[in-house]
Amino acid sequence: MDERIHEHAEVLVDWSARVERGDDVVLSVAEGAHDLAVAVAEELGERGANLVATYDSAEVTRAYLTAHDGEFEAGVHELALVENADVYLRLGGGRNTSATADVPGDVRQEYASASAEVREARMATDWVSTVHPTRSLAQQAGMAYEEYQAFAYGAMLRDWESLAGEMARMKELLDEGSEVRLVKEDTDLTMSIEGRTAVNSAASVAYDSHNLPSGEVFTAPDDTEGEVFFDVPMTVNGRRLRDVYLRFEDGEVVDYEAGANEDVLETVLGTDEGARRLGELGIGMNRGIDRYTDNVLFDEKMGDTVHLALGRAYDSNLPDGEAGNESAVHVDLITDVSEGELEIDDEVVQRNGRFQWEDGFEG
Amino acid sequence: MDERIHEHAEVLVDWSARVERGDDVVLSVAEGAHDLAVAVAEELGERGANLVATYDSAEVTRAYLTAHDGEFEAGVHELALVENADVYLRLGGGRNTSATADVPGDVRQEYASASAEVREARMATDWVSTVHPTRSLAQQAGMAYEEYQAFAYGAMLRDWESLAGEMARMKELLDEGSEVRLVKEDTDLTMSIEGRTAVNSAASVAYDSHNLPSGEVFTAPDDTEGEVFFDVPMTVNGRRLRDVYLRFEDGEVVDYEAGANEDVLETVLGTDEGARRLGELGIGMNRGIDRYTDNVLFDEKMGDTVHLALGRAYDSNLPDGEAGNESAVHVDLITDVSEGELEIDDEVVQRNGRFQWEDGFEG
Repeated sequence: MDERIHEHAEVLVDWSARVERGDDVVLSVAEGAHDLAVAVAEELGERGANLVATYDSAEVTRAYLTAHDGEFEAGVHELALVENADVYLRLGGGRNTSATADVPGDVRQEYASASAEVREARMATDWVSTVHPTRSLAQQAGMAYEEYQAFAYGAMLRDWESLAGEMARMKELLDEGSEVRLVKEDTDLTMSIEGRTAVNSAASVAYDSHNLPSGEVFTAPDDTEGEVFFDVPMTVNGRRLRDVYLRFEDGEVVDYEAGANEDVLETVLGTDEGARRLGELGIGMNRGIDRYTDNVLFDEKMGDTVHLALGRAYDSNLPDGEAGNESAVHVDLITDVSEGELEIDDEVVQRNGRFQWEDGFEG
Repeated sequence: MDERIHEHAEVLVDWSARVERGDDVVLSVAEGAHDLAVAVAEELGERGANLVATYDSAEVTRAYLTAHDGEFEAGVHELALVENADVYLRLGGGRNTSATADVPGDVRQEYASASAEVREARMATDWVSTVHPTRSLAQQAGMAYEEYQAFAYGAMLRDWESLAGEMARMKELLDEGSEVRLVKEDTDLTMSIEGRTAVNSAASVAYDSHNLPSGEVFTAPDDTEGEVFFDVPMTVNGRRLRDVYLRFEDGEVVDYEAGANEDVLETVLGTDEGARRLGELGIGMNRGIDRYTDNVLFDEKMGDTVHLALGRAYDSNLPDGEAGNESAVHVDLITDVSEGELEIDDEVVQRNGRFQWEDGFEG
């Protein structure tokens, strides 16, 4: 077995999930993630954790959903499994990223509604989501298989301790700041971050971070004003959004445009009131991710990018008891800031792809 | 997809497991059983059952067990899953029947002990075990892949209703009888079946039968006397037993011999006192199974064979409160009766491969 698979498994179990002896672990295995599952099982065995592996096959899900009449109920057994788990490790990586493409949208929604309790129980565990690099994901990224493996492991097998330290600086700036301004071509946007708490998303449950790879610092903005242009493409509802332009007044989108599939953007914005407001400001700091691969798990953490999400805010960014922006959607849009600047309370913290604490920063 | 896979799934879900709307179903999927899992998921969706798929990969198990220090504890989450399930469908069919060959025996035993409660909870569900014909199983059977598929579906896609009716006749004869005698070359064996209840194992939970394929009628014999020769080979503890000869006095083996690997037989007989007594007499009645394939799920149901098991008896054959033969082992040995006869209370019920109710029976 490729040594990188063992390293990936070790990072996942030790750094990300902090698995300990006696932990009840659910290992969710996608169709193409067998080799990673074997490596993770070895790590879990070594630590003396208790293992249940579930088979999260997109083709099995498609067969089940398309045959069902749509009146779903949550399985008591599934809820019991997840409620009794300490750790939930999701190993993505299928054989076809479009495997569920023909499942009707309303069936998907009914199933998602019926699964809400299970999803909440999963979020209450020390859960981590990662992917095993498969040929299908390489294809989605437009990359050769070996090229994609090198990319994916480059993003995941990092010195997380050191990156967590660097991201702590950004978190401190955001926590102490009141207003963020983003300036680049076709972009001049200000957002309030007063009273909000940033998350240092260092790919570990110890940092309240549940993705491997991660490498972003994010918070929940408010009172957005101005215009912003997103030059990194994003797949939303199965279609590619390009060159999105948004103009905000009083926190709300008042004008929008997209270079392709503008109707997808229109549908998102029309979902509910919260879908026209921002729920997240994220600063990508993982320089192991140096290109767009059409996979949000990677894209939004890309170094020298900033992402903004239309829709739902995360509780972890909000003071206790404050709801923040609420919406049925959370759609990330990404902009390249390798030419541009990010200011907090009029102080430039990032310019042309350099943070203020880095060599080469032009203050 | 091969139409036979859909038929297999339908037989499993409808005839065998009797799945109904709202049932909480665990679908245990071996590494090579993906296609069958997809077909079964479709059937479960149609019926409105609730689905959790588990990944029962022999390679994942091997990695976990070989890395573990051997002090296992049962996962509370696994027990919760199984205790809350109505139906447990096990889809066997791996990629290597020797995938766990290097797991030390004591680790296996420790793990099995720690899993006892989960196993009992599984037996309390409407469970059914079947296999998806894989290349690995074809290899084990010494057959070409397409040849093996034809064999396996021939064994599983039967007119179960009609076979159940035929087997009911055999059950009635056994339930009303007091003594069974088996006579063939090197064989003249008598057993008491007084007070015991035969199981009509018709591949359905409605018949207290949990294997697909099935097709045997079995009971628990006692007071065995005489000699018996088993000419169908069996793999026991990973090694092939051939041409086993046993002689019984007062219900107990007093002489034994094997044409190959006699030490395996010796080990089995030495396990405990119950290992030297019979726990099962089974009459194979599935004529879709017409050859030995080194897979007990199929072999022991082969038409025109009789099997006897050294060791543990099944509760379903015993009057309430009676323990029957107890042992840590249950080792099936099979003998071909296409030349030979089976008598119940001095009445010939099967001779030279014909039952008394069949054309060509020589009474």
